[in-house]
Amino acid sequence: MRGISRYSPPLPEGFLATGGRCGIAAKPGKKDLAVFASLQPCVAVGMFTTNRCKAAPVLVSEQHLRGGRAQAIVINSGCANAGTSVRGLADARAMCAWTARALGIATRHVLVASTGVIGEYLPMRRVRRGIEALARRVAHPGREERSGRSAAETILTTDTVRKVASEELEIRGRRVRVWGCAKGAGMIHPQLATMLVVLLTDGAITRSLATQALRVAVAPSFHCLSVDGDTSTNDSVFFLANGDLSGPRLGPGRPGWGRFQIALNSVCRQLAQCIAADGEGATKAVTLTIRGARSDGEARRLAQTVAGSFLVKSAWYGEDPNWGRIWAALGRAGVPLDPSRVDVAIGGLWLAKRGVSTGVPPAKAHRAMRGRSLPITIDVHQGVGRATYFTCDLSPEYVRLNADYRT
Amino acid sequence: MRGISRYSPPLPEGFLATGGRCGIAAKPGKKDLAVFASLQPCVAVGMFTTNRCKAAPVLVSEQHLRGGRAQAIVINSGCANAGTSVRGLADARAMCAWTARALGIATRHVLVASTGVIGEYLPMRRVRRGIEALARRVAHPGREERSGRSAAETILTTDTVRKVASEELEIRGRRVRVWGCAKGAGMIHPQLATMLVVLLTDGAITRSLATQALRVAVAPSFHCLSVDGDTSTNDSVFFLANGDLSGPRLGPGRPGWGRFQIALNSVCRQLAQCIAADGEGATKAVTLTIRGARSDGEARRLAQTVAGSFLVKSAWYGEDPNWGRIWAALGRAGVPLDPSRVDVAIGGLWLAKRGVSTGVPPAKAHRAMRGRSLPITIDVHQGVGRATYFTCDLSPEYVRLNADYRT
Repeated sequence: MRGISRYSPPLPEGFLATGGRCGIAAKPGKKDLAVFASLQPCVAVGMFTTNRCKAAPVLVSEQHLRGGRAQAIVINSGCANAGTSVRGLADARAMCAWTARALGIATRHVLVASTGVIGEYLPMRRVRRGIEALARRVAHPGREERSGRSAAETILTTDTVRKVASEELEIRGRRVRVWGCAKGAGMIHPQLATMLVVLLTDGAITRSLATQALRVAVAPSFHCLSVDGDTSTNDSVFFLANGDLSGPRLGPGRPGWGRFQIALNSVCRQLAQCIAADGEGATKAVTLTIRGARSDGEARRLAQTVAGSFLVKSAWYGEDPNWGRIWAALGRAGVPLDPSRVDVAIGGLWLAKRGVSTGVPPAKAHRAMRGRSLPITIDVHQGVGRATYFTCDLSPEYVRLNADYRT
Repeated sequence: MRGISRYSPPLPEGFLATGGRCGIAAKPGKKDLAVFASLQPCVAVGMFTTNRCKAAPVLVSEQHLRGGRAQAIVINSGCANAGTSVRGLADARAMCAWTARALGIATRHVLVASTGVIGEYLPMRRVRRGIEALARRVAHPGREERSGRSAAETILTTDTVRKVASEELEIRGRRVRVWGCAKGAGMIHPQLATMLVVLLTDGAITRSLATQALRVAVAPSFHCLSVDGDTSTNDSVFFLANGDLSGPRLGPGRPGWGRFQIALNSVCRQLAQCIAADGEGATKAVTLTIRGARSDGEARRLAQTVAGSFLVKSAWYGEDPNWGRIWAALGRAGVPLDPSRVDVAIGGLWLAKRGVSTGVPPAKAHRAMRGRSLPITIDVHQGVGRATYFTCDLSPEYVRLNADYRT
């Protein structure tokens, strides 16, 4: 529907995944429960929301990841299991325990995530039956279980398309695959969002290197992503690697390490772009590049303020080449700025140079904003810091979707 | 239209104001130029936007206020004269010079403000003719010039109602009046917004006490106001007092000082509430009270984050009693918070206590959100800090208005 093909790349060797419907009220008639599993225990690392109100599954997964190993992930959509206090924690732990028992693995090797409405409890009897049904399918895998397609569909909420990305590389004659899927849509803001991401690889990598590689890949992708400026209570990125650590490993100075990092970066960037393009109600995927900042950090703050502005995003929706709103947003980013040095290009046309209009006719500028992708480039001429942000416009549909989410 | 009567209270003694149409393109057929004047030079103080991209009139008014005196204010709507660099500065200075010449006063005693589209130049020939016409009306004042009604209408942009508030008090047998008018609508966020406010009084007050009184009045009103989180390049609050300083003055320990501050606070609070209620596309005036924070400052930050959330504001529009979104917004405010101690009341009903649902039926909670005013109370149970914020919901109309502003 939005430029992503129906083809779903296969999972890395030794991984299986499936999704189905257990009957969570907020997602009637749709798949709402997924299980990802590996045939062998994996090296497992994760990154989670910075929101101080963390959902129960986030707290449980953080705890289980302290061991650095995992073999399965169970995810439900439709209910966030957040704002549920001690009962929510018990529910998240039960989801892990049931998944572990059904798959015959250790409870501490199961990670859990939830996404959906905050403040409601999970229908645990249905969840239990759902987990048992999915575990049976994982035990007798077909093509669907090897593709991850059904699981990737299950974790979606208001997303309009499945978000899957995959890279393959050959290292010393052996094929290594990096596969990822994501759930995005609303409440998306840097430092993660209601964003669930599962990254799987059959590469062999130690825990500390996996942590490092994940940080490198997340910085320019999921941390440079904004739909609406809201950071969710449930954001989780899981990275599981099931390659055999007793054989040749990935690592600095070893063959293929650079290419592996590039593949992981690429999967994360593709997923981040998909999330931005499929933001709730979005009609445009906006790639916002800031250059000439005094540092990369300041460039990110400038980008974040522009990407978070109601007014700027409304103008993008209306294809209004209103560079003044972008200029005004830069001015309130909390970053030292000389307004008379700011250049702004919208849709490839420089509409402002040195803080004043270049006199491009509005009709021409308006035409340059048509279509589903909109590049915006801003040069603040103060240094060499730069950042690229993935974001979208704000449409009346966003408000309608979020006004009608529950009632 | 929105609960504000058609009655316009008279200006304080010795002030005159009028508005008319000079022909700024973005406001076709509507009043776009206003002059406020005093018969005597006034003590004058102001507060301006914290945006680093300041409009030309802001820079010129700041300069003129260094002298601490003013006798007139000239304001145009339809064009912000921002993003206009040196030419914009020359234009703003010319507006002051022409007003001064037409009224027979000093240029440095004229303040200037603009509001409207950023990045366009003012049609200076029209502005000059407009100023001369208005000055003639001020020189031969009728009832309109003494009411300020026309000037208050002129400064509006996408506002749907005139915003005027007034208080009168008697101090030692003499009547003292505090009068204010404001322009709000969009780009409204704490630390001011595209908000123009003119406050006039016939009380006698020194410059330093006027500065102090203004700060006291602005803190809980215009600094606790958020429509869309965007801080404009043009925010200005002017406060002019023309009382005779050689007679009895206002001041601490003198009669009526407390009542004068209360009157000024009341005028500012009324205007702030009008601005929030008349936010672009707003269907609800939301009064957001945070209590139990560790300090008033932290309470303000919590309020600001909730009031700035796209998701929370969309739920308000949809009358969706989704306390979870408010809880999630609190968690990303950057303030230490114990999620399991948060209570949330929407429309007077406590929907969450200690971070979990109280089980109020959604239909009942939904009914409590009907109507044009919506009180929200949040208790974080950590201390005695509190704040009250004036804000509004986010409707599809906001996006439509701001998508169509120019093109």
